[in-house]
This record gives sequence, structure tokens and C-alpha cells, in this order.
Amino acid sequence: MPRKHRSADLTQVSEWDDGALRRKDDYLAAEEPLEIRIGENALSVTMRTPGHDVELAAGFLFTEGLVQRREQILSLESDSGNAGKNPGNVVRAEMAAGSAPDFEKMRRHFFAASSCGICGKASIDSVRSRTLEPPNPHFRLNAEVLLRMPEALRASQAVFGRTGGLHAAALFDSGGTLLVLREDIGRHNAVDKVVGWALLEGRLPLASSVLLVSGRGGFEIVQKAIVAGLPVVASVSAPSSLAVQLARELRLTLIGFLRGRRFVMYAGEERIGQA
Amino acid sequence: MPRKHRSADLTQVSEWDDGALRRKDDYLAAEEPLEIRIGENALSVTMRTPGHDVELAAGFLFTEGLVQRREQILSLESDSGNAGKNPGNVVRAEMAAGSAPDFEKMRRHFFAASSCGICGKASIDSVRSRTLEPPNPHFRLNAEVLLRMPEALRASQAVFGRTGGLHAAALFDSGGTLLVLREDIGRHNAVDKVVGWALLEGRLPLASSVLLVSGRGGFEIVQKAIVAGLPVVASVSAPSSLAVQLARELRLTLIGFLRGRRFVMYAGEERIGQA
Repeated sequence: MPRKHRSADLTQVSEWDDGALRRKDDYLAAEEPLEIRIGENALSVTMRTPGHDVELAAGFLFTEGLVQRREQILSLESDSGNAGKNPGNVVRAEMAAGSAPDFEKMRRHFFAASSCGICGKASIDSVRSRTLEPPNPHFRLNAEVLLRMPEALRASQAVFGRTGGLHAAALFDSGGTLLVLREDIGRHNAVDKVVGWALLEGRLPLASSVLLVSGRGGFEIVQKAIVAGLPVVASVSAPSSLAVQLARELRLTLIGFLRGRRFVMYAGEERIGQA
Repeated sequence: MPRKHRSADLTQVSEWDDGALRRKDDYLAAEEPLEIRIGENALSVTMRTPGHDVELAAGFLFTEGLVQRREQILSLESDSGNAGKNPGNVVRAEMAAGSAPDFEKMRRHFFAASSCGICGKASIDSVRSRTLEPPNPHFRLNAEVLLRMPEALRASQAVFGRTGGLHAAALFDSGGTLLVLREDIGRHNAVDKVVGWALLEGRLPLASSVLLVSGRGGFEIVQKAIVAGLPVVASVSAPSSLAVQLARELRLTLIGFLRGRRFVMYAGEERIGQA
């Protein structure tokens, strides 16, 4: 696991416990800005937890609609970490001829920035304007398999237990086997890392996989999942109204409150079967 | 409370509970895009929970550095909710002469959009480039007063109990009195609503107040707090490494894991006193 050590920083803090004060060491979830460049043009700066930065960049390019196929990216390189003002915090993409984005057009489209996962959308009208295909209608998932996923995620999420500050996103197959797990201080980044992994592994679309995210299933998570072709998104907490609306429109299966032996189906329940 | 009903949507869902399936009604945290315009120019689209939209726009303009004083905003108007393609989802700002932003300059600066709360920063270098003043060094807060804040926040957070999906941000004075509470599906939006309230009420800088946020204290929360002049930021969960670094650099008091009779001080502990 390259750079795993960078995902958490050790620091000294003061703990106040019922009037008693003590100094102690504490792990913090690392958060640093990552700049994604296309050639020499800065495309985006994202606050993320270092680690799997190339996957994050690949996933960002894909889920934001800048690339549709692996072949459009000639190379993706993370800087060596020992040069420049922001060592280790730049990923540079070289695009195939004809695949480089029109920066002037993007400048206009990306203008209306946002801090919420719909960056790059210039107006409300564009939020749902991309032609998104409904995911695999034939995929089926057994409820008992679904119930086991949160524990598998937690067991794999070493860093989370240490800092309490990282979100996780994981892919599972229909048998409940964990395919990949990525963590980040931003839930959308964790999802981009997972989707970027799939892009680089030649596994897209993810027509027979389940995406499990820690925390809440928001609009941007569902949007990214649909772009990646995922039929099922599950989370351990509540989805938002717009996430549910989008999932229903595009027939994605959206599960929330997946805890213990209980879950809530907000959309696409036809994909979930009993044992 | 205008539009309170819009912060949660009622929908039908299917609950799976140990093999038993039942239909039930469920409240979802509302999430809709808000477009902030300056005159006729779209400035930003933010996914937010409807409600207190004018405060959100005011807070966004302030914490993103587009305005420094209340007087620079001539008017802020939410559309009536019955016209256009996005009823109720546009706030229009009219700026005083000389205060309107240079859109061409902003286009360049805002280009490198992000989904993380540092939208509007064109490169890594600019993340910490704003001249931020250390907050009030004389402010003191009693630990026992701090301990009571989470319960006061929860007691006021009616919607949270219903949907489990909304973040909260609240201001308290040094005696522990709750001054204002705002909720949103995005933690940074909840903070912008609180800061926007303070701007519109003529209460900035918030040199003698404490900001409490549900969830995690990330970099963008600390950044917004410092812009608003807040000396203390507390959260019930873990801060990120960059939040701690920024708080230490700028001498803001940063509290995490504020639960029960315990909390952790990550920076600025000189402001916290025993009873």
C-alpha cells in the first residue's frame, strides 16, 4: 500500500476528561490539497487524504465526464514528492490526441464552482443534463449478502478505527466479496478513488458490483455511481431527497441505514432478493 | 421559520427488517441546487438544504472573500418560488458600486473548481494565501460551559432527529447561550448560513462567540471560522490534519470529540479554562 502512512498524521493534543487534563498522541486524518493537471493546465484542486492519488485523478476525470474510456488517458503521473512547492500533491494527466478538454469551454462551464460535489456544473439546469443510462436491470443481490457488507468494510478499514475521520467507499461483487476499498476525508473522493481503480483496471462499467459508502448517500455519490454503471449503492446512513429522486429516475437501487439486520430501500428494490 | 417544511421531504420507502418487508413513510433531508447570482451573472451553484437561502448566500459571499462588509451588498433576494425553471432555488445579489466582483478575474481564479469547500482557489498555493488575522486572543471559555453545548444543539435540532441526514452549525456566547442554529445537508453550508446570519445582523466579527458543528471539523470549517473572526470552533468528531495545522498557525482554539464530559484540544487551549 504505497503512501499508506500519509493517510494519518500523528500529533500531540490535550485531552480534557471530567476535569483532568493530559497530553497524549493522537492520529489525525490527513487532508491535503491535490492539484490535477492536464498537461500544464491546472484542472482542479481537491482537498483529499493522500494515497491512491492517481486513482483519484482517474476517477475524477471519469465521473466528471472528462473522459469516457481508459484509452483517452495516455499517462497519469503523481509527482515524486520531492520537488516543487507542493511535493506529492500534483497528478499530471496526458491525454490522447483529440481527448484533451477544451479549456476555454471548460472555463465557462466550470465557472460556477461549488463546494458540494457538483463543481463543474455551470447552472442548475446542467446538474442533471448528462445523458445517464439506467444501470444493469438484470443484476440481483441477496439481502443476506448485503447485510454482511458493512462488517466486511469495517474490518478492512484500518485507518478509520484509528482516526475516526475517514470516509470509506468499497466495491463488492454479488457474492459479497470485497473487491476494493478506498478511504478519504471526502466521501466523494473515496468514491472517485474506487471508480478510478476500476477505470485503470479495465473494469468499467461496474455492471455487476455494489458500492457501499460510509456515512450518507448524497446526490453526488449516486451521480458518480450511475456514471460508473453501478446497479446498487448502499450506505449506513440516510440518503438525501435528491439522491433518492435521481436513483428513482435512473432505476438505481439505493439502500440506506444498512445496520445490523435491517436496511431501508429507497429505490430499485426489485434487485434485492430474499435468501 | 420560513420554508421549514422544505428542509425535509416525505416519501414512501421499503424497510427490510430481519426478513420482514414493510412499506413506510420516511422523511428525507432535502437537497436542492441553489444558484447564487450577482446581478445576472451566475456565481455559484451549491447543493444545499432549502431554507435560510439568503443567509447562505450572504455567508458564502463573505467566507469566500467576495465581500468584507455588509454595506457592500445592496440587496439579496430569493426568488419567489413560482417562476422560472428552478423555483425557489435562486438568490440574487445586487452589489454596491465598486463592490461588484471582476467576473473575468474570478473566472480565472474560480476555474479550478473543487468539490471540497475550497472552490474558488485556482491552485494549491492559493489555499492559504488570504491574509487571515488570528482571532480574539482575550476570549476565554469555561470547560463546563463548553460541555453543555452539544446537548443544547441537539435539543434545538428538530430536523436532525427526523431525518438523520442534516448537519448543524450553531453559535454560542461565552455563557453557553445558543445564539443561532442552522442546518444543512452540507456542513460548510450550515456554517455559511450561520456566518451569513451574523453578517446580516451586523454581528461580525464574531470575536466573542463559539462555533459548534456536528460531525467533523475540517479545513474549510476552520477557514470560514477564521474569516468570521471566531476564536473557538468545536465539533463532536475528529478534525483533519490540515484543520489542526491552520488552527495552530492562526491561533484559533480547535476542539474535537466533544462528547459527554470529555473533549480534545487540538489548538489554542489557552482559551479554555476550568470552572
